[in-house]
Parts: sequence; C-alpha cells; structure tokens
Amino acid sequence: MSSVDSPVFPAYLGVDVGGTSIKIGIVDDSGQSLAHGKIATEHEKGPENGVARILSFAKALLEEAGVIWQDIRAVGLGTPGTMNVKEGELLHMPNMSGWNFFPIRSYVEEQSGKPVAFINDGNAAAYGEYWVGRGREYDSLVMFTLGTGVGGGIILQDIPLHGDNSHGSECGHITIESGPDARICPCGQPGHLEAYVSATSLVKRAKERLAAGEASSLISVLQRDGVISALDIANHAEQGDVFAKTLVVETAEFLARGITTMMHIIDPAIVVLGGGMDFGGSASPIGQIFLETIRRTVTELTFPVLAENTIIDFATLGSSCGYIGAAGVARKQYGQISS
Amino acid sequence: MSSVDSPVFPAYLGVDVGGTSIKIGIVDDSGQSLAHGKIATEHEKGPENGVARILSFAKALLEEAGVIWQDIRAVGLGTPGTMNVKEGELLHMPNMSGWNFFPIRSYVEEQSGKPVAFINDGNAAAYGEYWVGRGREYDSLVMFTLGTGVGGGIILQDIPLHGDNSHGSECGHITIESGPDARICPCGQPGHLEAYVSATSLVKRAKERLAAGEASSLISVLQRDGVISALDIANHAEQGDVFAKTLVVETAEFLARGITTMMHIIDPAIVVLGGGMDFGGSASPIGQIFLETIRRTVTELTFPVLAENTIIDFATLGSSCGYIGAAGVARKQYGQISS
Repeated sequence: MSSVDSPVFPAYLGVDVGGTSIKIGIVDDSGQSLAHGKIATEHEKGPENGVARILSFAKALLEEAGVIWQDIRAVGLGTPGTMNVKEGELLHMPNMSGWNFFPIRSYVEEQSGKPVAFINDGNAAAYGEYWVGRGREYDSLVMFTLGTGVGGGIILQDIPLHGDNSHGSECGHITIESGPDARICPCGQPGHLEAYVSATSLVKRAKERLAAGEASSLISVLQRDGVISALDIANHAEQGDVFAKTLVVETAEFLARGITTMMHIIDPAIVVLGGGMDFGGSASPIGQIFLETIRRTVTELTFPVLAENTIIDFATLGSSCGYIGAAGVARKQYGQISS
Repeated sequence: MSSVDSPVFPAYLGVDVGGTSIKIGIVDDSGQSLAHGKIATEHEKGPENGVARILSFAKALLEEAGVIWQDIRAVGLGTPGTMNVKEGELLHMPNMSGWNFFPIRSYVEEQSGKPVAFINDGNAAAYGEYWVGRGREYDSLVMFTLGTGVGGGIILQDIPLHGDNSHGSECGHITIESGPDARICPCGQPGHLEAYVSATSLVKRAKERLAAGEASSLISVLQRDGVISALDIANHAEQGDVFAKTLVVETAEFLARGITTMMHIIDPAIVVLGGGMDFGGSASPIGQIFLETIRRTVTELTFPVLAENTIIDFATLGSSCGYIGAAGVARKQYGQISS
C-alpha cells in the first residue's frame, strides 16, 4: 500500500458485504483508509462463517494499517437486500438466502467485542462520498449507484435516510414512466428508473434495437460472442459508434428524470453518481458526454434555482465508498466527535 | 369559540399566508388552537401593510384566546411561492408579485418584537398534521395537499425537509409519466403529479372526455353553467354518475403512483392527504372510494413491507393545519421542550 498520512485515532473497521465479495478496510478518524482488501462472500457457508472470515481478515490488515485491535473503536457494516436497521437484522438477502433473518448486528458485536453500526449498502456508499468523497463540502447528498441494478443513498445533515421500514433511499425504484409501454423493473413493478438505466436494461435496450435492424459496430460483437455487455457499449461509443453513443445519451436522459424527481423531493446540495456503469466517468470522453447530457436534461426539467445551484458529478471514492462509509457511520454512532 | 382545555403556556402565533386569505391563530404549547380567524390578503397593498394587519388581527384574538401578548413566545410564519428559508426571504410569490424578495422574517421580528420561524406553507401544513393531527403518533410523515394545485410537506424525526435551496418537499412535482403524451404541469414541465391530480387537471380531464362524447350527468351542468368544477364531479360521483366515479378512481390511481415514489424515497410511517380535493374525505362514500383506491393501488405498486406497514389516510386538521403547523415550528425553534 502507498504511504498514508499519520493515522488519526481512533480507527474503525468498515465492512461492505456484497453477493460475490466483501470489502473490508481499516479507516481512521479522518476518513483515511489505512489498509483494505476483499474476500469472497461464499454465502453458501452461512453468515457465521462469513463473519468469522471478515474478522480474521480484518485482524490480518492491522499490521499494514499500523494499528492494534484496541485502536478499533467500532465496526461499521453495510449489507444489500432488505433489512431491519433498527433491530440490526437481515431480512431478505438476494441470492444469499442462507443469510435471511440473521441478527447480524448483535452477532458481529458478540464475535468482535466492538459496537456495530448497521446500515444498508446504498446508504453506506452515500455516507462515504458525503464524509470524505465528492460530497465532503456539502451538508446534503443524494447518490445514485449505477451497476447491474440501480441503488443509492440519501444523507441529510449527516443522517442517512433509512426510512421507517428501512426502505428509504431506494433510488432505483422511482417511477419515471407509467404508460402501458413502461418497462418492468426486476422488482416486478413497471416504470422504475432501474428498468431504464441499469447495465442490464442498457444491454436489453441495445439488443431490442439491433434486433429491429439498427446499424452498429456492436453487431460484430453480438455475432462473435453471442452476447454484448454494458462495457462493450461504452467501448464502441468511445470508438465512435453512433448507435452506442445514442444509447449512452438516452440512458443519461432517463437518469436525469429520476434525478429531477429526487431534486424536487430532497433538494440536496449535490447529486453524486457512482457504480461501475459510469461509462468511464470523468476520465473518459464518453463519461463526459454521459454527465453533460444528464446535467443538460436536468436543467431542462427542473426549477431554475435548482438547475443553477445543484451540483451533479461523479463519485470519487470508487469501490471503496461502501466500507469507508460504513466506517464513517460507525464513527458517527460510536466515535469521538473530532470534526 | 367552543370551550377549550386550559391553555398550556407559552403560546405561539401561527400565520398561514395564502394568495387570497391569511389564516391566523393563537396556539398553545400542546398544539391546541385557542383562537383563530382569517383576513383578506389584499396583497396589492404590499407586505408591510399585510404584516401590520396580521399583527393587529392577532392582538384582537388575544382576549378570546385568554392570553396576553407577553404569553406569546414566538411567531410561526408559512408562505407559498419560492423562498429562501435560511435567509428568511420571500423570492417569487405567485399572483402576489409585490411581495417578491421581501425579507419577511426580519420584518415580522421587528414589527412584533418576537422571534419568527419561517417555513413554506406545505411543510407548515405537514408539521401541523405531524404535531397534533393524523400523524401525531408517528415520527415521520409525508403530506400531499390536494387543491387547485398539489403541494405537500415532509417531516422526518421532527424536522421539516426544506432542502438545500428551500425546494425540498415539492410533492406535486414528482414525475409520474414521461412519454410523449405526458400532461404539462402548470410549472411548465411534463408528467408531474400535479398535472394529473389537481382540481384543475381533474376538470380538464373531465372536459376532454365529455368533448369526446362520453355520457355523464355532468353534461347538464356544463350546458347550464358553461363550466364544471371539481366539486361538481365529486357531487355527481356521489349521486351515482359512473363517468364521474371513474374520474375519481383514475385520480386516485395517478396519486398512488406519486405516493409510491415518495414511499420508496422517504419511507415515512404515514402518508397524509389534505386539501380541499379529497372528495369529501372520510365522511363521504366517494371520499372512501378515493382513499381505498389509493391504498389498493399503492399496495399493488410498492414493496410488500411498505404495503403492509405504511399508513395512508386523510388529514384531520382541515384548513387549520397551516397556522397550527407554523406555530408548532415556532415552538420547536423557540419554545421550551415540554413533550
């Protein structure tokens, strides 16, 4: 690991549980990641086994982080699926049903001997960006996480919006279309944002239009591999394929509708876009077209004051935002207030 | 005024400014309205004149309320239009442009000698329902105010959601439709909830369908008066007109889409429906059909946990919710904490 600034104590253990892998990091009181890595979820072995491997891996990170276990004030834990945040319990975990109804907060507290802050993964990511990422200078933030699905989080004056049933901040499940042609979301409902801007929906839209006879250099990929991916679409857009570029612009326009609704309800200081489906982000010309199209469309759709003032930009923490944010929520709940 | 319970001191002055009239009440620390009334806005005389008449009327209410001016701890002031809540300034006031850019909070503080809490009228109404109305037992609430337009408010753990630019909680400006046939909202944007469920849009939809030849007892009203109103539609639905009833059901279905999006973002404990466009509310069979259709449609559209747990019901404070809520916000900011 590259050299870091001197750690600011106490430190926190941040854990971001996913269906495939679990990201784990030791984060200091200033939000600096001192050491991090990931392990396979291997969910089929059950949650007790997962927690044992999380804690074992965390202890192996201590030396690199330059801290001892006693320096860890608390654990922050973000998970996908549905949950009861107040009770610290997992409810339904997509594709990892062996973890359903597991009282994970109290179990990690027992096994680690540390207090545990429990949060959904979307709000953990949003809190990371709010605390030390793109949103660090602002006091309210909405994050959209664009990937295979669409998630997100909302932070208002340092408080993640969990909702009364731990179902707040479901940024992918905003309705943007309700007519008879509305696309069906993986959740089963029509017209949700996720059904228009996820990687899955991008590929679906591309295949529909190619099947209808539109011309594109993507056809050769489809013929060669039998499938196309969101990354193929991004790459071909980058290489100048007009069809692929149109899909990127269309995705941005759909997303802008969801962002607009969020601005009219939450009116955050900043809207942050994270996840892998960012078309290369700010480093890429296509990522820039994606972002500029979102900004232009939001400006057309929203109130003038919001169009002028609300910042819309890419996230800056990459895939670290989840464990850093989880650590940040642990600091907020159990740490000393040092900033 | 009917007899009230013994006032709980201190008391607050609540003011709900509208384009036509201003509602003013003296509210005690328990949320009980001790005396109230309304005056004409007469906006063309300017804001200084309006404030003078508000304070003069308020002082005339003191005797009925059984309090003296020294018992009034603070003033709560709700206004329509756009504003800067932090700075206490009105920005654009629809149909009362002489009030634009008026620094109303500091002016009322000077003139009254009391601290003033300033809030938009939608959040004031929502806070009233949250404090002592239908939402009094819950710690998060979303209110939709259905009238000529559609407004609303959001209260999370006792805090009204103003937003970073005082543009949060714009419940009428959630997008529910984005196709080419989307209706245009009075704000100029396509597909907003207000364009589907306001009284104005209800009448518009009725006239479109009557013009297209649908049968209804409303045709006689249109022939007699040249116009129909939302109240006519409610009355004819009540009298059994199938066409009018269909319009009520359709309005409920549109509203359910907006409520669903709000539930997926905010996940409040309770959603409250206020304003005049409630088809008679719980006292009326048509109001009951309206509410049941909303509940059934939301159940179809939302996540099972939310469908099961989230309460959806009519508001209980009627047109008093605005001044009571404004008083409540004044109590929250400047009062003693007695509950």
